[in-house]
Amino acid sequence: MGVEIERKFLVQNEGWRAQGEPVLLRQGYLSSHPERVVRVRIEGGAAVMTIKSKAVGVSRGEWEYPLPLADAAEFLDRLCEQPIIEKYRRRIPYAGFVWEVDEFLGANAGLVMAEIELPSEEQAFDKPDWVGEEVTQDVRYLNSNLIGKPYSSW
Amino acid sequence: MGVEIERKFLVQNEGWRAQGEPVLLRQGYLSSHPERVVRVRIEGGAAVMTIKSKAVGVSRGEWEYPLPLADAAEFLDRLCEQPIIEKYRRRIPYAGFVWEVDEFLGANAGLVMAEIELPSEEQAFDKPDWVGEEVTQDVRYLNSNLIGKPYSSW
Repeated sequence: MGVEIERKFLVQNEGWRAQGEPVLLRQGYLSSHPERVVRVRIEGGAAVMTIKSKAVGVSRGEWEYPLPLADAAEFLDRLCEQPIIEKYRRRIPYAGFVWEVDEFLGANAGLVMAEIELPSEEQAFDKPDWVGEEVTQDVRYLNSNLIGKPYSSW
Repeated sequence: MGVEIERKFLVQNEGWRAQGEPVLLRQGYLSSHPERVVRVRIEGGAAVMTIKSKAVGVSRGEWEYPLPLADAAEFLDRLCEQPIIEKYRRRIPYAGFVWEVDEFLGANAGLVMAEIELPSEEQAFDKPDWVGEEVTQDVRYLNSNLIGKPYSSW
């Protein structure tokens, strides 16, 4: 098991847009239950399945396994809760860390989130000026919750 | 994807008990939703994750992946819906097919089911005399339903 320590923010300007190459991510859920999330993701030509346990503070247990691409495509198209999540991800290095900026499509269009993964809960970090309000503790922003209650419905 | 064609029966006497070596199976569910079952199983020293799509008649899509044993044990103990299923399985060859006889433990003690996997829905087969009533279409007997509504509660 790995432990994922992640903090999430909204963006407050468009400064992120010109940085990093956007990569399309397609992801869906075989379980979006907060105690046992099962996520299927295709990025580029590769697919992974990720299991996540319940978050305690900003930490969460996470296990990741490679999946055959054809199986993952079938899960996204036929088995996963619908609609699946599609988003462009940009990876933007800044002050020793990499920010992942997700620009959502479809029913979540208009939502842009910036995430940083940290080695410990106490780790200090600097924020680029386009990083805005923190939403780590707001469960509406969990990708697994953006299927049943997409941003456009808020 | 494989397609699983399976028929399930109750037993009507104890004739199965002296046949086959009982092996302990421990299995739990990260999702028991009928359209996207995610099962974790430990049998002997090996673990697998199985994804199952919705059944149509007696057929069901099924995908299976090996799992690290330590991960599977952690899923069963901490993440899966509780209580997990524990049962002794006996594999009994008969008339060209192998019957799997599951003797349930814990909250499902008293339940014994015999299953046969077939190459096609139309395949004919002979039944040993300890095989009783067919329950393939009775969803109460799905292992994924025996967690929320165990046999002892019927």
